[in-house]
Amino acid sequence: MSKVTTGATMSLDGYVADPSHGGFEHLFQWYDNGDVAVPTANPDMTFRTSAASAEHIRALVGRTGALVVGRTLFDLTNGWGGRHPMDKPVVVVTHRVPDGWDAEGESFVFVTDGIERAIERAHALAGGKEVGVNGGTIARQVLEAGLLDEVHVDLVPVLLGDGIPFFSGLGIAPVQLEGPFRVVEGVGVTHLAYRVPRSA
Amino acid sequence: MSKVTTGATMSLDGYVADPSHGGFEHLFQWYDNGDVAVPTANPDMTFRTSAASAEHIRALVGRTGALVVGRTLFDLTNGWGGRHPMDKPVVVVTHRVPDGWDAEGESFVFVTDGIERAIERAHALAGGKEVGVNGGTIARQVLEAGLLDEVHVDLVPVLLGDGIPFFSGLGIAPVQLEGPFRVVEGVGVTHLAYRVPRSA
Repeated sequence: MSKVTTGATMSLDGYVADPSHGGFEHLFQWYDNGDVAVPTANPDMTFRTSAASAEHIRALVGRTGALVVGRTLFDLTNGWGGRHPMDKPVVVVTHRVPDGWDAEGESFVFVTDGIERAIERAHALAGGKEVGVNGGTIARQVLEAGLLDEVHVDLVPVLLGDGIPFFSGLGIAPVQLEGPFRVVEGVGVTHLAYRVPRSA
Repeated sequence: MSKVTTGATMSLDGYVADPSHGGFEHLFQWYDNGDVAVPTANPDMTFRTSAASAEHIRALVGRTGALVVGRTLFDLTNGWGGRHPMDKPVVVVTHRVPDGWDAEGESFVFVTDGIERAIERAHALAGGKEVGVNGGTIARQVLEAGLLDEVHVDLVPVLLGDGIPFFSGLGIAPVQLEGPFRVVEGVGVTHLAYRVPRSA
């Protein structure tokens, strides 16, 4: 089975958002602080990053076959306007299929019977490529279920002082990871990748 | 004036201790997971780290002329048995000189009139070398006072799930840092160093 990974942009003091679930103008600066264009599936959204970060994003998109996201993230982005910017099929973990959406669409599949089933569906959609998991709550559940293989952190040099931690409320802590097995130095961001040992 | 720096070992999810101010068996593994001996001023305490971390520690000790610590850390370590392991003079920020200690000893100087004065005293003791600040609460106060030049993070691949954040309760957030200007990959730790811009 292909790998299941998660990643987030995190402040140096460990937060993936400020206390009001914002702060992205600080966290996501690295997506727009360079001169290398990184197009997305959304014609209105092109990242402009350092060469190192652009290559990092291109490699991630290339490795990824499908995504699993939580209903919160789906609602927050309004279903990314109909197609995820990574241009991959997305499995949405939810209690109920949202109004106006097919349970089994081309861009979004809604799974109402739990995280394990969502990961299974994503593997089937991924065509042998990796499954990416977002955001933090879903990533935590996948880690707790023993289904997560890698944790990627895009560490940015800002102190938020308070906020939403990555893997907040983790029920199986401490979890010892291995690595980083990859360190990519961008501009205003350090891309770190860690493995979850099989026993965790 | 020489630089003022702070540093801490931090979990990948942003904690410098677990919720009960422990968890050091997970955080400090990198001090004892290698075969390069790093002696300290305490004959009973020798670190055994990777070659990269040993060189990192040696460079830090070489750059540092004096330390500023909080009373909590001083009490917690019982005054490091009389001399700090880095073998540097230590300025302790406190409300009251503890019983049994001279206000102006060779190893410890107790400053009761605030953080700015403590940093001044440390500069005078440092002989032109850097002033190191520990732990988190004192580091936060020095940052808030506009006196901090660098933040060093020894990032370890463990998820604690909850705990004491670095710079907890920061009153001037967000603080944008610059860097990392140095990335040293040890074993079980990544040594990162950031600059505090002069405006912060």
